Amino acid sequence: MFNTIGIVGVGLIGGSIALDAKSLGLTDRVLGFDRDGAALDKALQLGVIDKKGAGLDVGECDLVVVSTPVRSIPDVLRGVFERAKDGAIVIDVGSVKGAIVEGVMDFLRDGVYYVPVHPIAGIEKFGVDAAVKGLFRNAYCIITPYDGMDQNKAGAVCRFLEGLGMRIKFMDPGLHDEVFGFVSHLPHAIAYALVGLASRKGDNYRFIGGGFRDYTRIAASSEKMWSDIFLMNRTNLISSIDGFVDELLRLKGMIEEGDYDGLMDYLKKARLFKESLDG
Amino acid sequence: MFNTIGIVGVGLIGGSIALDAKSLGLTDRVLGFDRDGAALDKALQLGVIDKKGAGLDVGECDLVVVSTPVRSIPDVLRGVFERAKDGAIVIDVGSVKGAIVEGVMDFLRDGVYYVPVHPIAGIEKFGVDAAVKGLFRNAYCIITPYDGMDQNKAGAVCRFLEGLGMRIKFMDPGLHDEVFGFVSHLPHAIAYALVGLASRKGDNYRFIGGGFRDYTRIAASSEKMWSDIFLMNRTNLISSIDGFVDELLRLKGMIEEGDYDGLMDYLKKARLFKESLDG
Repeated sequence: MFNTIGIVGVGLIGGSIALDAKSLGLTDRVLGFDRDGAALDKALQLGVIDKKGAGLDVGECDLVVVSTPVRSIPDVLRGVFERAKDGAIVIDVGSVKGAIVEGVMDFLRDGVYYVPVHPIAGIEKFGVDAAVKGLFRNAYCIITPYDGMDQNKAGAVCRFLEGLGMRIKFMDPGLHDEVFGFVSHLPHAIAYALVGLASRKGDNYRFIGGGFRDYTRIAASSEKMWSDIFLMNRTNLISSIDGFVDELLRLKGMIEEGDYDGLMDYLKKARLFKESLDG
Repeated sequence: MFNTIGIVGVGLIGGSIALDAKSLGLTDRVLGFDRDGAALDKALQLGVIDKKGAGLDVGECDLVVVSTPVRSIPDVLRGVFERAKDGAIVIDVGSVKGAIVEGVMDFLRDGVYYVPVHPIAGIEKFGVDAAVKGLFRNAYCIITPYDGMDQNKAGAVCRFLEGLGMRIKFMDPGLHDEVFGFVSHLPHAIAYALVGLASRKGDNYRFIGGGFRDYTRIAASSEKMWSDIFLMNRTNLISSIDGFVDELLRLKGMIEEGDYDGLMDYLKKARLFKESLDG
């Protein structure tokens, strides 16, 4: 599908894309690029990439996948656009899209085709050691189109991502950030706050029931990745936090008033919604 | 260990205790008691109990396990104390302990030995159909002693619970409720509020990333069980909610101010605490 793929940022996501692209026959060769030479060596040693690239010299690549920490993505994309060959497709896989898409519009150039992408397949691990085959199988992937995006090249990206097993949805970059500020960034903020609070309590609080275990899982994610995401999607995340605090205080009000019927109704609706998501 | 065990309330917890007690040779016979005749029939049919008991006629039982919904436990215990034979041990497995222990002190009588217990092994399923063997293997179990609790009988309860695979800890009933108001009841309240809020958003919000999936899991729990728990542990839960809201707003403050170093430090500490829990 693509003779040569360049992975810029060989971590969990970039590495897993490389592994699948090769094993599923979607490319002949993967070049790796990373400022961290040790990560690049490890990627080569693990067979995640076929060859180490120098700097951002992506000129040989038919497809470039930018999977660096989200805050660095606009700058990296700018450098990639400059060096990419004519006809190359460039995607980024950042979890925040509005600021990235907006930030790179001025640097787009003719003959290089940019498609912004968000594969929803993060796990709490990170680094190229954690890269695995099949990470994206049945995962959703959001493409966030912008004015002037080449539809044929976007179609080629779709086929590549579908080849990795993903299900594609299109969403405006701004709406994407609003939705993911709520369904992903807010839960992470909540988990961090809960675990942060627990960490300052005494040993009596080290009993981990089902509820708390669920929250600690995502609080084991990379602080670098999540500091970046929280700050890049600041506005949406703040309004999600405010909306959530209002909702939690509404639930607290029912508990305070001993409103048994109101509570039963509230919790039941939540359970039914959860069941509708599974169906 | 006990010739005859009575299970009052044959749901997930009571049923799973019955299954293990029999298969591990800790009892010869299990009698089941439940106001819900259909649940009792099903328990018999599934082999969870050996015989249906009538009303609260627990007079044949050497050990009575009260595993009804937590709000009903004080009344049920009162009835069980009246009908239990001399020398019988009675335990309840409610997830809230202070209100239960306090509520039944006046009804204790000589010759019947009460030991309050909280096995930390809930899953989001409920009902006797969900009862399984091995639910308590390696789970913590809290015993919450009160003045005058018989130490020998508490020892017998320990050996029984350890026979089911549990690890025993002792904790004052009030401290138990404070701790579990934070590590279990608060996470459930948060999960319900998050899912409740999501259920009123549009279809764009149905993308379920790792973060949101973790929260929806516990929001699928029984609304009856959790309405009861929220109200019985009201005071502790409310102060846990207040403390958590303060903490989340502190995190929001760092995001609002763009305090990258502060965020990195906060998230890293949370991750390290999570790793210390696993270790």
